[in-house]
Amino acid sequence: MNVITLAHGAGGKETERIIKSLFLNYRIRKVNSGIGLDAFDDGSTIPFGGKHVVVSSDSYTVDPVFFPGGNIGKLAAVGSINDVAVMGAIPIAALDNIVVEEGFSYNQLREIVNSMLEVFEKENIALLGGDFKVMPRGKIDKIVISTTVIGIADSIITDSGARPGDYVIVSGTVGDHGAVITAIQSGIEAEIGDLKSDCAPVTRIIQIAKKIGEIHAAKDITRGGLAMALNEIAEKSRVSMIIEEEMIPLKEEVIGLSELLGIDPLILASEGKVVLIVDRERAEEVVKSLRREGFNEASIIGEVKEGKPGFVILRSSFGGLRLLDKPIGEITPRIC
Amino acid sequence: MNVITLAHGAGGKETERIIKSLFLNYRIRKVNSGIGLDAFDDGSTIPFGGKHVVVSSDSYTVDPVFFPGGNIGKLAAVGSINDVAVMGAIPIAALDNIVVEEGFSYNQLREIVNSMLEVFEKENIALLGGDFKVMPRGKIDKIVISTTVIGIADSIITDSGARPGDYVIVSGTVGDHGAVITAIQSGIEAEIGDLKSDCAPVTRIIQIAKKIGEIHAAKDITRGGLAMALNEIAEKSRVSMIIEEEMIPLKEEVIGLSELLGIDPLILASEGKVVLIVDRERAEEVVKSLRREGFNEASIIGEVKEGKPGFVILRSSFGGLRLLDKPIGEITPRIC
Repeated sequence: MNVITLAHGAGGKETERIIKSLFLNYRIRKVNSGIGLDAFDDGSTIPFGGKHVVVSSDSYTVDPVFFPGGNIGKLAAVGSINDVAVMGAIPIAALDNIVVEEGFSYNQLREIVNSMLEVFEKENIALLGGDFKVMPRGKIDKIVISTTVIGIADSIITDSGARPGDYVIVSGTVGDHGAVITAIQSGIEAEIGDLKSDCAPVTRIIQIAKKIGEIHAAKDITRGGLAMALNEIAEKSRVSMIIEEEMIPLKEEVIGLSELLGIDPLILASEGKVVLIVDRERAEEVVKSLRREGFNEASIIGEVKEGKPGFVILRSSFGGLRLLDKPIGEITPRIC
Repeated sequence: MNVITLAHGAGGKETERIIKSLFLNYRIRKVNSGIGLDAFDDGSTIPFGGKHVVVSSDSYTVDPVFFPGGNIGKLAAVGSINDVAVMGAIPIAALDNIVVEEGFSYNQLREIVNSMLEVFEKENIALLGGDFKVMPRGKIDKIVISTTVIGIADSIITDSGARPGDYVIVSGTVGDHGAVITAIQSGIEAEIGDLKSDCAPVTRIIQIAKKIGEIHAAKDITRGGLAMALNEIAEKSRVSMIIEEEMIPLKEEVIGLSELLGIDPLILASEGKVVLIVDRERAEEVVKSLRREGFNEASIIGEVKEGKPGFVILRSSFGGLRLLDKPIGEITPRIC
């Protein structure tokens, strides 16, 4: 490894590899019995006062800054909220750091910030502070936003608790956000039609499912798409999965754009959807509850199996099996 | 305001103005009785389990990335630690988000990350997680790092508790970091000599002072330098200050570089020094303790006065008085 490549930031295998090479010799990886660096989970936890303080921080570099269904401000709020929400926490506070290019339009900045604040307000999240920096013209492409979200949980959901026999649920159609951004980056925005990024907080989804019973594992579907989310859960839980391809909810437009782009829709980010792993006895009820609450495309898509830890198998409607691996390479740079 | 200028990010009056215009209509500004957006303090607090969770998050864009005394990784660790430490908390955990330019050297990145981790390790801070993104070549200048630091405090120190009669202490020489960075940016690095950035954690300084007795106000000296730190304390505490110019510890090299650059050294960032406001009865003892522990330049530099809230007056050795105002304009872009 001599220089950093776009693949290192794409959220797939190369990202895992560089993060491990940079950070895994660091000695202090968690606070007491909390979840920290080793877990590579969506958020981290600090046990405190009989509860869990859950925290996540991400930087958002999405290009374009404005896109159908949102902008970088909305995405920066949603992305960090979701990493805290899938840990089972209720987000209560946020901080934001904005780094913007000299000469950027004040009105556009205001629109971006307002979109971010609108998400925080709807979720009843306090904005506690942050940072504001300007880089000279040409030294940064428009704007980068980092958000940190803090939540409180009575009990924690990890991405490593899937058990053989459990069912795999997705909360809605996958790949919408990734299809929109990739299409724009590839210069085929004319083909997007009415498709929008699905970026939205998933806090309600998790809380609805939690009411039915324990969630064994949860993960939001971001860089690397459904493929990455399922692989991480399977690997960390030391189980395999059989996923029924025809059960995966996909919008017609996402299928169409994926074909045009020559990309598997299952590696496209969603930013408003989650994978839930629950006891098979409760899976139907979780899906029903989600649909009743407006998540109409929530679906059981497969089953957790024993053996072959880390393998995710996709079964087509004709019965053919193929391995659904972690994505490799660039995928789409600056997807989130 | 049509477009964003470098002055908006310089940490002076224009930064205050734009942050207020963007964020001050937001409704949810704190968690319960904690310190949040309104306070514009160094860190924020969440009351929890009978204690205070203290959190701060900043983005670091310093140019050059490597400089005498440190690099962007060390600075990113130190900067966010210091914002938590001056609130009276012991930092316990951190998250880091790295956004790096495609083509950046892996070895340099490793050196930067190692410098950051070295600071965290010395301070016994757990690294819980973070983010790693790559932007295409030319879309970001080398590297931007955002760090979030979380600490726990039994009691909180603000920047608004200065009382008339209190003494003003600085923990060491001011302006070192700012002088080094500005000299390099101005192309006069040959003049820097042995001067180094003073970037270092201030946790010990605060804890040493705390042992002597209550600290009425504290602030680290970052963008806008000593001038900004004193003005913010005076303004928020609704008091004035008289500062004795000759008592301010300044390195010869900083004075020399400031003259060459035509900049007041009192607006240059320090990144390893703090202002402490303490009861006059205890001020001598605080300074003695600090010197005993190796902070040899710690000094009483002035006194808090009643009336004229927000005014900071500098008295020269000849008795002349001048107003030490908040800095205006660009100062040095990308100082931290």
